[in-house]
Amino acid sequence: MRNIDQHTITDAVLQSIAATPDARLRQVLASLVKHLHDFAREVALTEAEWQAGIDFLTATGQKCSDTRQEFILLSDTLGVSMLTIALNQARPAGAGATEATVFGPFHTADAPHVEQGADIARGAPGLPMFVHAVVRGPDGEPVADAEVDVWQADDDGLYDVQRPELGDARRARAVLHTDAQGAVRFRSVVPTAYPIPVDGPVGAMLRATGRHPWRPAHLHFMIRAAGYQPLTTHIFRDGDAYLDSDVVFGVRSSLVGDYVEHPPGTAPDGAIVDTAFFTLDQPFVLARAD
Amino acid sequence: MRNIDQHTITDAVLQSIAATPDARLRQVLASLVKHLHDFAREVALTEAEWQAGIDFLTATGQKCSDTRQEFILLSDTLGVSMLTIALNQARPAGAGATEATVFGPFHTADAPHVEQGADIARGAPGLPMFVHAVVRGPDGEPVADAEVDVWQADDDGLYDVQRPELGDARRARAVLHTDAQGAVRFRSVVPTAYPIPVDGPVGAMLRATGRHPWRPAHLHFMIRAAGYQPLTTHIFRDGDAYLDSDVVFGVRSSLVGDYVEHPPGTAPDGAIVDTAFFTLDQPFVLARAD
Repeated sequence: MRNIDQHTITDAVLQSIAATPDARLRQVLASLVKHLHDFAREVALTEAEWQAGIDFLTATGQKCSDTRQEFILLSDTLGVSMLTIALNQARPAGAGATEATVFGPFHTADAPHVEQGADIARGAPGLPMFVHAVVRGPDGEPVADAEVDVWQADDDGLYDVQRPELGDARRARAVLHTDAQGAVRFRSVVPTAYPIPVDGPVGAMLRATGRHPWRPAHLHFMIRAAGYQPLTTHIFRDGDAYLDSDVVFGVRSSLVGDYVEHPPGTAPDGAIVDTAFFTLDQPFVLARAD
Repeated sequence: MRNIDQHTITDAVLQSIAATPDARLRQVLASLVKHLHDFAREVALTEAEWQAGIDFLTATGQKCSDTRQEFILLSDTLGVSMLTIALNQARPAGAGATEATVFGPFHTADAPHVEQGADIARGAPGLPMFVHAVVRGPDGEPVADAEVDVWQADDDGLYDVQRPELGDARRARAVLHTDAQGAVRFRSVVPTAYPIPVDGPVGAMLRATGRHPWRPAHLHFMIRAAGYQPLTTHIFRDGDAYLDSDVVFGVRSSLVGDYVEHPPGTAPDGAIVDTAFFTLDQPFVLARAD
């Protein structure tokens, strides 16, 4: 293994990992090495470009914190996240299960668990929104006691974790459980389009490539129920200007929801609302675990 | 750009960067995206594997510090560093210029500048070594006033930056300048084989793939002189057990030096040495800048 050149080095690296005990790890790593090397050879990567890549990856890792995941943002903006979802969440044709989309970097594990009908906005700015979501199985059966984890940006386009002034306080996110009819009801604020964070390496990449940083307005859902496949998805707002240029490539037509705007008046939960408000009635269909 | 699937997403991402003003950036990024996507498709990357990749890259970035560059270590151990060097440092056949090898993660910009004959070990443990290096151009002309940056691990296999007890103190590294004959002379300690740091993500990768972490003993040189191409290389110790399995794929036969062991006695600089000691007479040939 001396005198390796640009042609023989790939085999040398593959040889070095040939004894990897885990066959799947060996397969994944071998493919990664081959494609990484092919990339470097294809573009004749210069040493300065290699250094820029090292610096970029280092800065991306160092930008990560408990509330910021810059590598997920990088994966999202390079289409790798959505590709992975497409590879794994392909639903059998005609099965009618709700499609999945990107997880994104803003989920937290410490969202408040709330009762039906709760106002999960907890003071987040925005026009009121009343959501009624029903979770069913492939045969139309209601899925009771499903865990419905919902999170979103507020009217300023910010998630709670992007507001240092909130500290650890959580708002515009919650975990609910479906009732016997498979339903959850909650109040929040209507989501708006927002730019992904651009103060890190991913923002620099977007600027250098002339891309805008916007995501169309959406509500995140992660739904889990015994006997069904977990579902991570969004419900997008119809008419959003960024539906066809989502910076993370996450939009599917089937995930554009019917956000209905209402004039001030009585909300579905009986509350009197003195501003315009929105309602969203959204069905979800889970695929069976088998 | 809705309803993207695992086949159409690559074109969607390429389309999104099609307006990148810098043509080279566009080319490099497009190639990277294609190979990254091909990799994910080829192995049918699972969501759990994607998450493991995100976690690995994040941990790699977070392991980096002023004195630790885990992404360079990752690039080194996956052969990407040596591949990049091979792509850029191919010497014209027969020109005789000294070959390059990996830069590695342990260079620092604050090495002491020392005079000819200095003991650059500054207390680093190891058997004494007396180096006489001569820098020439392709026609054999001595290169005067070349900057010779040298760094190495000590007898415990550690660089100074790997010893927290040293703080910012630098040892077993220095910057010298060649004299009118193109020569530098210095005293140090003879390098020994050492494992790369295995307390981070790269160490975990090596363990998972059954690879040892060892590098054969070597002395780093970075040589710069006006009118010549800069050279970053090592001089390896002949007979080292790891010459054929260097964990970073850096060994070239032409870079194995003649480290001569001597019994206790008088060193080349006239010093009386009461242990065995080594001498290394090493020629370097720089390629011309044009």
